[in-house]
Amino acid sequence: MGMTMTQKILAAHAGLDKVAAGQLIEADLDLVLANDITGPVAIHEVQKLNKKTVFDKDKIALVPDHFTPNKDIKSAEHCKCVREYAKAQDIANYFEVGEMGIEHALLPEKGLIVAGETCIGADSHTCTYGALGAFSTGVGSTDMGAGMITGKAWFKVPSAIKFVLTGKPSKWVSGKDVILHIIGMIGVDGALYKSMEFTGDGIKNLTMDDRFTIANMAIEAGAKNGIFPVDDLTIAYMKEHSKKEFTAYEADEDAEYDETYTIDLSTLEPTVAFPHLPENTKTVKESGDVKIDQVVIGSCTNGRIDDLRTAAKVLEGRHIASGIRAIVFPATQTIYLQAIEEGLIQTFIKAGCVVSTPTCGPCLGGHMGVLAAGERAVSTTNRNFVGRMGHVESEVYLASPAVAAASAVTGKISEPAELGL
Amino acid sequence: MGMTMTQKILAAHAGLDKVAAGQLIEADLDLVLANDITGPVAIHEVQKLNKKTVFDKDKIALVPDHFTPNKDIKSAEHCKCVREYAKAQDIANYFEVGEMGIEHALLPEKGLIVAGETCIGADSHTCTYGALGAFSTGVGSTDMGAGMITGKAWFKVPSAIKFVLTGKPSKWVSGKDVILHIIGMIGVDGALYKSMEFTGDGIKNLTMDDRFTIANMAIEAGAKNGIFPVDDLTIAYMKEHSKKEFTAYEADEDAEYDETYTIDLSTLEPTVAFPHLPENTKTVKESGDVKIDQVVIGSCTNGRIDDLRTAAKVLEGRHIASGIRAIVFPATQTIYLQAIEEGLIQTFIKAGCVVSTPTCGPCLGGHMGVLAAGERAVSTTNRNFVGRMGHVESEVYLASPAVAAASAVTGKISEPAELGL
Repeated sequence: MGMTMTQKILAAHAGLDKVAAGQLIEADLDLVLANDITGPVAIHEVQKLNKKTVFDKDKIALVPDHFTPNKDIKSAEHCKCVREYAKAQDIANYFEVGEMGIEHALLPEKGLIVAGETCIGADSHTCTYGALGAFSTGVGSTDMGAGMITGKAWFKVPSAIKFVLTGKPSKWVSGKDVILHIIGMIGVDGALYKSMEFTGDGIKNLTMDDRFTIANMAIEAGAKNGIFPVDDLTIAYMKEHSKKEFTAYEADEDAEYDETYTIDLSTLEPTVAFPHLPENTKTVKESGDVKIDQVVIGSCTNGRIDDLRTAAKVLEGRHIASGIRAIVFPATQTIYLQAIEEGLIQTFIKAGCVVSTPTCGPCLGGHMGVLAAGERAVSTTNRNFVGRMGHVESEVYLASPAVAAASAVTGKISEPAELGL
Repeated sequence: MGMTMTQKILAAHAGLDKVAAGQLIEADLDLVLANDITGPVAIHEVQKLNKKTVFDKDKIALVPDHFTPNKDIKSAEHCKCVREYAKAQDIANYFEVGEMGIEHALLPEKGLIVAGETCIGADSHTCTYGALGAFSTGVGSTDMGAGMITGKAWFKVPSAIKFVLTGKPSKWVSGKDVILHIIGMIGVDGALYKSMEFTGDGIKNLTMDDRFTIANMAIEAGAKNGIFPVDDLTIAYMKEHSKKEFTAYEADEDAEYDETYTIDLSTLEPTVAFPHLPENTKTVKESGDVKIDQVVIGSCTNGRIDDLRTAAKVLEGRHIASGIRAIVFPATQTIYLQAIEEGLIQTFIKAGCVVSTPTCGPCLGGHMGVLAAGERAVSTTNRNFVGRMGHVESEVYLASPAVAAASAVTGKISEPAELGL
């Protein structure tokens, strides 16, 4: 029996010819990531060990992005801890605010992860890099700390679900709609500890930014990882951003999958996940009259340039509804600058949007857009759990940048078609 | 004996021909201001009264700018309180985030206050509008609440200190250096409950933005207000921004002043206020080798377009020092957009600066740039009290945008001349 894409990467990194689902292995790591929330926990644990240096100063990324620019004294102390450790260990890929961005947008952009590599990160959405054909997954801070010291991690080899994507999505349907549709279909534990392996000729119709969004939310179906095959678009992206050599693994023809789903992308519609789980999906047409207070466009899920372009297309020449707050946050400084050069930021400001420096802030109810009791947000982020963006009596509706932007204009859950687009 | 500028405005608003220092009067108010910190306190008090409506829905400004975009659930609830009150009372000048800016930059920009008017605001730096020849002062939330209901406020008529400004400041000397020099000279209680009245032919060499900065910090010398005469530049500014009629009051020739200081602007040098009081001033040349961690450029004191232009001139083609965070926050959305159109924001991002949406955040250690223990900031804000920007063991050095930008490049307190500028 053959191996899945994920299994092949893990086998290669474990020095094994073959691995099978359920097998426990130790794999070499190409990249180990932490942020300003999880980094200090890992660092404190590591500092208790005898081994005083990291396994490879070039294979660790520390990105203070969650409560930055420092929300309060505690977050300032956490960032200081990460900064000082990075300096003491001469860690090459420490990204200060001002040079940084949201970790899962930043690392691919900086070329730190490419196809065929393994990555663990002390953040759930580390699975994002599966868009590049890498094995990448979120772990706890202590596992991350151990990985930072040893360069290795234990894994139980996951089984997989195959998603065969066919067809071409219509104009206002994006990667976000694809992944929301899938999670709606299989549920938030539908892929528990499994790989979500995407394949099919519909993938060529998804931009890299679409694929990042899809892989990013694999964890919201409970998956160990999400992964895409490497095609010309992936190769072009990696060549533009990275000098690293990559390996394009393909699943064996006789690889075993627990399940196989075929999804015709042309049949999908703009989709929203209602409170309080990403699986509570409805199409916008089915959503009814849901009045909102806030719109958030950005995050590691949807803060890339394609996302901002789409939102700007909807907001160009329009103004957000009275009484609505709309917060746009580009995912990296590079994206921010590019969005200015393309006139997108100007469109947002003229439309009445807040434009923030890159930060994870609002996504996790951290800062920069926290919700009060009774308030509702349409958000391009990845989680809509109870209290995720603020008060336990607030509500989050997950959607694409197109839907979020259209909703900002109308003040209720809407799709661009309602604006004649 | 004649009246000062301030006394003339107060007399006119009290319906009196003449007032004298120390006299208690009741004056009509042209504008009453609160923000997201002080507004809820005022609103809660007002809601206990029998009088259920504000005195004039067009003469109240509510600006949620301090902990916005909402820092946390508590700030979200405070903003909600202000938003709902504004809606219930049909208050014309409620500014939602996205349409807003920092109150003391926003109100003059929106033309809500002009020469000869009276304004109270539940924020210390309400004295800013004295730059336009208005009487404007900070009050507590309950006084603000009473003003919002009655349209009147009690004042003890202040005596005054006259500052005769002569000469022309050199290239990198700005309004911030002027006011820091003055506070260094007279101390933080040097003008306690007095008017600081600026006059002299040097004023023509100060831009409106310089004057706003100077009036803004009158409170840091303990003054009741700071005030400038109305000249062609003031009139041009008001005509550009406001449709209101204004009255240009001039001090009587025989007005009495407690003291008179003459300051030759051409003799001033880039100046820094050391921790922990604005009066602890030194010129940059006298400052020695003070290494820093963070630079903040913005605020109601120095977040206007002239300030950003100056900072960008210093940062153009340069990069901030390694290990330094630099946070730039335009004071209003209009300034933000203009700064993009002039290429200033692009310069900041390329230099490695964070560029934030307008917020008071870092100035008061609220959010968006709070300092950890032992950290030092050079900041264009207005207060450097113990713990003002974060941990009680952090330090704030107040300076102009030019000095802040130069310091960001070198990583220590510096002036542009050190960069060959």
